[in-house]
Amino acid sequence: MLLKQLFATRTHRMEASEIRELLKLLNRPGLLSFAGGIPDPDLFPAAAFSAAFQAALEPEYQAQALQYSVSEGYLPLRQWIQREMARMGVPCDTDNILITSGSQQALDYLGKLFLSPNDTALVGWPTYLGALAAFNAYEPRYDQLNPGGNRSPASYRDAAAEANSRVKFAYLSPDFANPTGETLSLSGRKALLDLTEELGCAVIEDGAYHALRYEGETIPPVLALEIAQKGSLEQCRTVYCGSFSKTLSPGLRLGWVVASKPVIAQLVLMKQAADLHSPTLNQMAVHQVAEACFDAHVAGLRQAYGARRDAMLSALQTYMPEGVTWTRPKGGMFVWLTLPQHVDTAEVLVRALDQENIAFVPGQAFFADGAGCNTLRLSFSVLDEAEIRTGIERLGRLLSGA
Amino acid sequence: MLLKQLFATRTHRMEASEIRELLKLLNRPGLLSFAGGIPDPDLFPAAAFSAAFQAALEPEYQAQALQYSVSEGYLPLRQWIQREMARMGVPCDTDNILITSGSQQALDYLGKLFLSPNDTALVGWPTYLGALAAFNAYEPRYDQLNPGGNRSPASYRDAAAEANSRVKFAYLSPDFANPTGETLSLSGRKALLDLTEELGCAVIEDGAYHALRYEGETIPPVLALEIAQKGSLEQCRTVYCGSFSKTLSPGLRLGWVVASKPVIAQLVLMKQAADLHSPTLNQMAVHQVAEACFDAHVAGLRQAYGARRDAMLSALQTYMPEGVTWTRPKGGMFVWLTLPQHVDTAEVLVRALDQENIAFVPGQAFFADGAGCNTLRLSFSVLDEAEIRTGIERLGRLLSGA
Repeated sequence: MLLKQLFATRTHRMEASEIRELLKLLNRPGLLSFAGGIPDPDLFPAAAFSAAFQAALEPEYQAQALQYSVSEGYLPLRQWIQREMARMGVPCDTDNILITSGSQQALDYLGKLFLSPNDTALVGWPTYLGALAAFNAYEPRYDQLNPGGNRSPASYRDAAAEANSRVKFAYLSPDFANPTGETLSLSGRKALLDLTEELGCAVIEDGAYHALRYEGETIPPVLALEIAQKGSLEQCRTVYCGSFSKTLSPGLRLGWVVASKPVIAQLVLMKQAADLHSPTLNQMAVHQVAEACFDAHVAGLRQAYGARRDAMLSALQTYMPEGVTWTRPKGGMFVWLTLPQHVDTAEVLVRALDQENIAFVPGQAFFADGAGCNTLRLSFSVLDEAEIRTGIERLGRLLSGA
Repeated sequence: MLLKQLFATRTHRMEASEIRELLKLLNRPGLLSFAGGIPDPDLFPAAAFSAAFQAALEPEYQAQALQYSVSEGYLPLRQWIQREMARMGVPCDTDNILITSGSQQALDYLGKLFLSPNDTALVGWPTYLGALAAFNAYEPRYDQLNPGGNRSPASYRDAAAEANSRVKFAYLSPDFANPTGETLSLSGRKALLDLTEELGCAVIEDGAYHALRYEGETIPPVLALEIAQKGSLEQCRTVYCGSFSKTLSPGLRLGWVVASKPVIAQLVLMKQAADLHSPTLNQMAVHQVAEACFDAHVAGLRQAYGARRDAMLSALQTYMPEGVTWTRPKGGMFVWLTLPQHVDTAEVLVRALDQENIAFVPGQAFFADGAGCNTLRLSFSVLDEAEIRTGIERLGRLLSGA
C-alpha cells in the first residue's frame, strides 16, 4: 500500500486482534455472550440523562454547552470529582483533576507522558487489554508486576538495565481488575508503594471498577495510602484514573485523572494539542446526573450486578468439571477461569460458538508475554441470572467433553 | 518535581504558550477581542440540537446512545459524510471514513501515524498553531511548504537527507487557512500534488473552513484533484480532515478523516487504543441536525460571517496607517496583518490591551521557525459589524502612534 511505507515504527505495535474482530461480528439469535465487558444498557440512568441534556441546552446554557471550552474540563464536574475523591481518602484541588474522554484516554495520555521507546512499564500478567493497546503506541518494554510477590526491587532494575531500559511506571487496577476480577489486598497495595518508591517510578492506578463492590469492606485506593504516608498529593508518585463508564454511561466517554499539579499541567497541554477538550455538553450533563443521583444509582447497580455475580459463581460451582479453577470477585464484571494447561481457549471459543452458542474472551490477549493460552474471561454484566445459569451449564458441558 | 524526571522526551516539545495563557484570562468589560478563532455562539443551531438530543434519548434509542460503540463511528453519520464528500468531488465508501473528536484529534492521530522522531513535516510558515502543537508530540523536524514557489523537490529531499530525516507529509489548509485567511489556487493545489508525488510523501489536507466561502467559486479539495488524476481514492496520498466545529458546534467535538482504506483501518486501531470511540450520542445528534438543516444553516453562517469580513476589510482600509498590509480572505474567520519589519506584535498586544482594550493574536506562534514577529491575526467571527469597526479604529490609532 502506497502510504504504509510512510507509517511510523510505532504502528508495528498496533495490530488488529483476530479474536476481537471475531467477537465484534457476533449477532446471532440465542447467543449467550460472556464476552463483552460492557454495562447492561437497561441499567443506564436514561431518564436522568434526558432531563440533563435538555437542561444544558436551555437558552441560558446552550452557548456554553455547544462552544469550545477549556482543556482542563468543566469546573463544576471537577468540583464533583473533588468531593468524590475526598470521600475516597484523596483530598485534592480542582487543579489536580483533568477530565478525559474515558479512562482509556487517560491511559493513552499517561503512556504518551512517560514512555519513550524501550522504557519499561510494569503490568500484571494478565492485565487490562486496553492498557496494553494504549501503551503499545509508545513502544515500551514490559515486565511482570506482582506486588507482594517474591521479586526484589533490584531484580526489576537489573532486568531493565540489561535491556538498556528504565522503569517508568507500574500500572494496575487494584479493585476487581479486568480481566481477573481480583482485588489487591491492603498489604499488597503497601508492598506496591514500597516497590515503586525503591524503583523511583510512577504508579498508574486504574479505578474503573472501584464503585462496583458487592461484598466486603472498601480498601483505600493506592493514592489514598500514599497521601496518608507522605502528607500531600503533591509528594505522590501515584496517578489515579477514574471513569463514569461503569457507573453512569460508557457512550458519553468521560473519565478523569487525579495527580500532582505539575503532572496535570503537562497532561492539560497534551490534551489541548490532541483534542482540545472533552465535549462540553456531555460534561454538563454528567455533572447534573452525578449531582442528582450518583449514590442511589450506583447502589442499584451493585444490587443488580451482585446478583449476577452470585448466579455465575453458583453455576460455576455446579457445572464446571474437575481441573477448572476460577476467581471469586468481590465486585466488577468479570470471573477468570483457568483450564488445564494443555487446553487452548482460542480453540475452545470456536467450538463454544459452534456447538453451544456461547461466547467468552480467550485469555491470551491479556498477557504482555503471550502466555495464558489456557485461561479465559467471563463477564456477568449483561445477562440475567437465568441466562447466566444456562450459559455456564453449556460451557460446563463443552469443557467436560474437552 | 518528583515525576518530571520520568517524563518522555516528547514532553520537551509541549510547552504552554504565554500568549495563549494571557488571552485565556481576558474577561474585562468593554474588551473588543479579535483573538479567539471561535464561532459566534449566537449562530449555533441550538434548537435543532435540543430536539436531536431529546430524540436520541427516547426509549427506542437510549441504550445505543449511552453504550459503547464502534471505533469507526456511527454509520448513519459516516453515510451523511460520504454524501457530502461526493458533492465535493470525493467519491468514497463508509470504510474510507473515520469519525474523530474534532479535526484536532485527526491531526494528532495523523502525526502519530506518520511521524517518528526527526521525520520531516512540511508546513506553511505560518500555519495552524494547533497542527504544530499536535505534531510536536511526535518530535518532527519541520521544513517550509510553499506550493508553486521556487523550491525544487530535490531541495526538500536534500535538506531532509542532510538532517538524517525523511519527508513524511505536507500539511496544509487550502481554503481560508488559519491564520492567514488565504486560499491556495487551483494551480497551487496541482503544484502541491506534483511536489508530494515527487517526494513520495503524504498530504494532510485540513478542510476545517471549506464550507465558509463568502465569495468566488469553490476550488476542489486537493483530494478531489488527486482522485481525478488517479482514478480512485485507494491510489491517493492525500488524507482529508473535515470538521463540524465551524459549521454546527465546536463543543460537541466531532470531525472526520477520509483516506484510503488501509490508512483508515490503521487509524481505527489507533482510536480504539486511544479513546475507544467518539461519544455515540453526540454522533447521533450531529447526524440528525446535519440531515435536518446543514445546507440552510451554513448558508446563514456565510451571510453573517461574510458581512463581518466585509466590515473588517472596509475598516482596515479606512484606519490602517501606511506600512501595514493585510490579506483579503474569501472565507473563513481570519485576516492576517503584516506590520513594518521592526514592530514586535507581542509588545503591541500588551499596549493594545492596556491602552485600547482590544486583543488579537501575535503571529509568531504560527511559525515553526519562530519568525513572524511583525505579524498578527485578527478574527472577525464573534464581533458584530459596529464592534469590528470600533475595534479596528482603535487598532489603527495604536499602530499610527507606534
